[in-house]
Amino acid sequence: MTEKKLGKFITVEGCEGVGKSTQIRFLKEYCEKYGVGAVFTREPGGTDIAEKIRAVILDADNKNMDALTELFLYAAARRQHTQELIIPALEAGKTVFCDRYNDSTLSYQGYARGLDKNMISVLNGWASGGAKIDLTVFIDVNPTEGFRRKGGADESDRLERESMEFHERVYRGFKEIAEKDKDRVVCIKADGTKFETHAKIVGVLKEKGVF
Amino acid sequence: MTEKKLGKFITVEGCEGVGKSTQIRFLKEYCEKYGVGAVFTREPGGTDIAEKIRAVILDADNKNMDALTELFLYAAARRQHTQELIIPALEAGKTVFCDRYNDSTLSYQGYARGLDKNMISVLNGWASGGAKIDLTVFIDVNPTEGFRRKGGADESDRLERESMEFHERVYRGFKEIAEKDKDRVVCIKADGTKFETHAKIVGVLKEKGVF
Repeated sequence: MTEKKLGKFITVEGCEGVGKSTQIRFLKEYCEKYGVGAVFTREPGGTDIAEKIRAVILDADNKNMDALTELFLYAAARRQHTQELIIPALEAGKTVFCDRYNDSTLSYQGYARGLDKNMISVLNGWASGGAKIDLTVFIDVNPTEGFRRKGGADESDRLERESMEFHERVYRGFKEIAEKDKDRVVCIKADGTKFETHAKIVGVLKEKGVF
Repeated sequence: MTEKKLGKFITVEGCEGVGKSTQIRFLKEYCEKYGVGAVFTREPGGTDIAEKIRAVILDADNKNMDALTELFLYAAARRQHTQELIIPALEAGKTVFCDRYNDSTLSYQGYARGLDKNMISVLNGWASGGAKIDLTVFIDVNPTEGFRRKGGADESDRLERESMEFHERVYRGFKEIAEKDKDRVVCIKADGTKFETHAKIVGVLKEKGVF
C-alpha cells in the first residue's frame, strides 16, 4: 500500500431474492452520474484466473465435490481477485464495490453448510490479506420474504423445502455477523420499494464518507 | 474409518531428477509380482475434479497467479483426492502409494517459495484430514547431483541458475522435514544404481511392515 489516499472497499451481502443485483446496478448508475471513481466486481470471479476457478466450482459435472475442496477453491478465487483487481483499484484511489465477499463464505459454507467457522475465518483472512473491508452493506430481507417476492417456494417440493432451511441458516449467519461487527456492517431493511432501498443505501454511504 | 484393518498410506517424496518415477514404477511391479493390494496415485490430481484443478494450476496462460492462490488450489486438489480416492482405498485395506503429498507443498511453496510454513502446515492438515501418512520414502539426492544425472544445468543461464537455488531450498526443506519427523520419514540415499535404490526401499517397506 502506498501513502496516497486509498479508495474505500465496500462489500454488498445478502440472501437470494433480496434485490442485490438491482441495488448494485443503481449504485453503478449513481457513481456514473456523480462522477464517483468506482470499480464494480463480484465473487467468485472478477479476474481471468478467478473466473477459471469459478468455472470449476460451478461445473455441474463436479457433483462429488467435497465441501472443503469447494471452500479452498473459493479462497483461491478470492486471493487472486483481491491481489490482482481489488488492491490495485484501492491503491489507485477507486471505491471498490464487491458483490459478495468474506461474509458470504462464512454464512453459506459456515452457518448453512456446517463447516468450521474458525477455519473459514482464518482462510478468509489469508485470502483477503491486504484488503480491509471499510463497509459492508447487508441487504436485510429474510428468505421467506425473499422467496415470496420471487413468487414463492413450492413447499411440497422436498428440495425447495430443504433449500429454504439452508437459506434460513444463511440468513441467520448474516444477521449474527452483522451483530458481532456493528462498526463494519450496516443492515439495510429492504421493506420498501427498490428506490427507497437505494435511497437508504446512498444515505448510509454518504454518512460513512464514501460518497 | 471402519473397524476393519486399514491399508497403509505411503508417500514418496524427493527433488527433481532423483528417479522418483522409476522407483514408483519398480514398486508397482513389485506389488503386482507379489500380489500386494496397492493403489498408485499422484499429486496434484488423482481424481476428475482434482485433475481439473491441476489443469488450472499448470495452465501456462495463468502467469499472474498469486503464490497463495496456487497454494489454495493445491489444498483443494489434495482435499478432493484424499476424500474421494485415498481414504476409500485405505478403508478397503489397500496400500496407497502417493507420488508427492504434504511434504512437497511445504518444501516447494514454503522453503523454496517463501510462503509462511505454519500456514502451509495448517492447510495441509485440513486438506489431508482423515488420512494419516504411515511412512514417507524420501529419495535423498541433492539437486547438484540430480542435475548432473540429468546432464547438468547450464550455469550461464540465469533461469537455470535461479532454478538451481530454488531446488537447493526445496532440498533443504525435505531434509529438515525428515530430521524433524524421523519416525515417519525414511531417507533413502540413492547413491547406487536404480536397482540398488529399489532394494533399499523394499527393505525399508518390509522392515516397517508394509510388505
